[in-house]
Amino acid sequence: MTQILESVPNFSEGRDLEKIERIVQPFRGREGVKLLDYHRDEDHNRCVVTVVGAPEPLKAAVLESMAAAIAVIDMRTHKGQHPRMGAVDVVPFIPVKGVAMPEAVDLSRQVAEAAARKFNLPIFLYEESATAAHRRNLAEVRKGQFEGMAEKIKLAAWKPDFGPAEIHPSAGATAVGARMPLIAYNVNLGTANLEIANDIARKIRHLSGGLRYCKALGIDLKDRGIVQVSINMTDYTRTALYRVFELIRIEARRWGVPVVGSEIVGLVPMGALIDTAAYYLQLENFKTEQVLESRIYE
Amino acid sequence: MTQILESVPNFSEGRDLEKIERIVQPFRGREGVKLLDYHRDEDHNRCVVTVVGAPEPLKAAVLESMAAAIAVIDMRTHKGQHPRMGAVDVVPFIPVKGVAMPEAVDLSRQVAEAAARKFNLPIFLYEESATAAHRRNLAEVRKGQFEGMAEKIKLAAWKPDFGPAEIHPSAGATAVGARMPLIAYNVNLGTANLEIANDIARKIRHLSGGLRYCKALGIDLKDRGIVQVSINMTDYTRTALYRVFELIRIEARRWGVPVVGSEIVGLVPMGALIDTAAYYLQLENFKTEQVLESRIYE
Repeated sequence: MTQILESVPNFSEGRDLEKIERIVQPFRGREGVKLLDYHRDEDHNRCVVTVVGAPEPLKAAVLESMAAAIAVIDMRTHKGQHPRMGAVDVVPFIPVKGVAMPEAVDLSRQVAEAAARKFNLPIFLYEESATAAHRRNLAEVRKGQFEGMAEKIKLAAWKPDFGPAEIHPSAGATAVGARMPLIAYNVNLGTANLEIANDIARKIRHLSGGLRYCKALGIDLKDRGIVQVSINMTDYTRTALYRVFELIRIEARRWGVPVVGSEIVGLVPMGALIDTAAYYLQLENFKTEQVLESRIYE
Repeated sequence: MTQILESVPNFSEGRDLEKIERIVQPFRGREGVKLLDYHRDEDHNRCVVTVVGAPEPLKAAVLESMAAAIAVIDMRTHKGQHPRMGAVDVVPFIPVKGVAMPEAVDLSRQVAEAAARKFNLPIFLYEESATAAHRRNLAEVRKGQFEGMAEKIKLAAWKPDFGPAEIHPSAGATAVGARMPLIAYNVNLGTANLEIANDIARKIRHLSGGLRYCKALGIDLKDRGIVQVSINMTDYTRTALYRVFELIRIEARRWGVPVVGSEIVGLVPMGALIDTAAYYLQLENFKTEQVLESRIYE
């Protein structure tokens, strides 16, 4: 495979294992597609699939899975803690290898167009695929959720990018878009004072004056008697992992608090770790192609 | 491919492109084998191939390539700056994925046995495959080179592990063995004083009291007006890259000299960089399986 994308579709079913199996099935044993993970949450009543593949097979598998989800999920009776607006709530596409962002955007538009046509489903393009600034942020698109969408979708500002300007009766609406890989990254501080984690989170996050591709908040790890700066890195190629880590260390120093560790939750692109190693070792002229594993599978 | 090894066979031909092509040919377009690189040096009169593959196809390709080299190279007329004892001078096998060292040793013995039989060639097992302590080090095995081997091989201490106790008239003898991946790693110092690089090299290398899997010497980078500690890391899983780097930094401090950069020459296993990133970020419980790319191709 010379071109690889990742997709992480979120479906509004986290309880009925038979239904979940029907949704996941199209990603199994399929040429050019690899199911990496799926995770269901009963409280959220939501299932998140992680899959990688070449553009065409991935597109076909995602559309099949969407068809299955729309067939088995009825949003009119759906209850769960996680915000949601559709049976297929959101379908992100993430470039992994040999794919530039404009190509990922293009692929997301093809999926959105095909799904709108096949399922008579209203679709909003979000993130890198968004057609207007106010539609980039998924939270903004989804505000009002399934229940509020019937009215919201009639507003000119919220006319869907594809499909009818009314919700699908049972499947609601879906967001589709291309985005950079997210890294869920947490830094642990040697103190039980949550105020310190919150203060540092405020200083490093974009929202309140920090790094451009960094979201953060303070978390209390009661079991361990420490606090944590919990971070979402939304573009590690521009806001590097090590820069966030060092900035937290600098801010923690003001409180006389040590950084006791950090953790990466879930998957991380190899590039983010190579970049980190290259920074600390002060590597000159290092190329990703020098990583043995990157050469084996090219 | 669930099991992958690397092989880096060295052949005593670095000038005749037609002969080199015949030697490299068995690694091309072959199911289960991937030719990553080959590099010839006219002064050394030597060609080094880098290839990865599944155990069985790799074994078959290496044996075919050995046959080609033995057919086209005559050591009686070979001249070159690099020490050498055979047409196929040395054939290392390196575990890359899903292969433990004992399995790599086993594979190296199979290749050695088959090559000795097919080509009537004396073969010494070296490194992890060595059958005696004095045969581990390739330099010791090769001492005397092709010209001296005719006599050396008759000594009880240098009876070959496979094949006749006399050299092959045109192809000499060959060393075959399993070893850990080498990392060629250099650290640059902000001084023109070679004595400092030599002093630090002495302190960090195993030979003179330093780290177990580290070889090092000082090098003068005249063009840049600086010096370098040039390192061979012989087992990065036990002597970590970052530990060597930090130790050099500590020793440079005594001279008031800054570390201005470092470089990795050629290929490096992903694990060595992940380990480095994990150290500096103080990562807790990080697993290689969290690297997206490691999951795509498993």
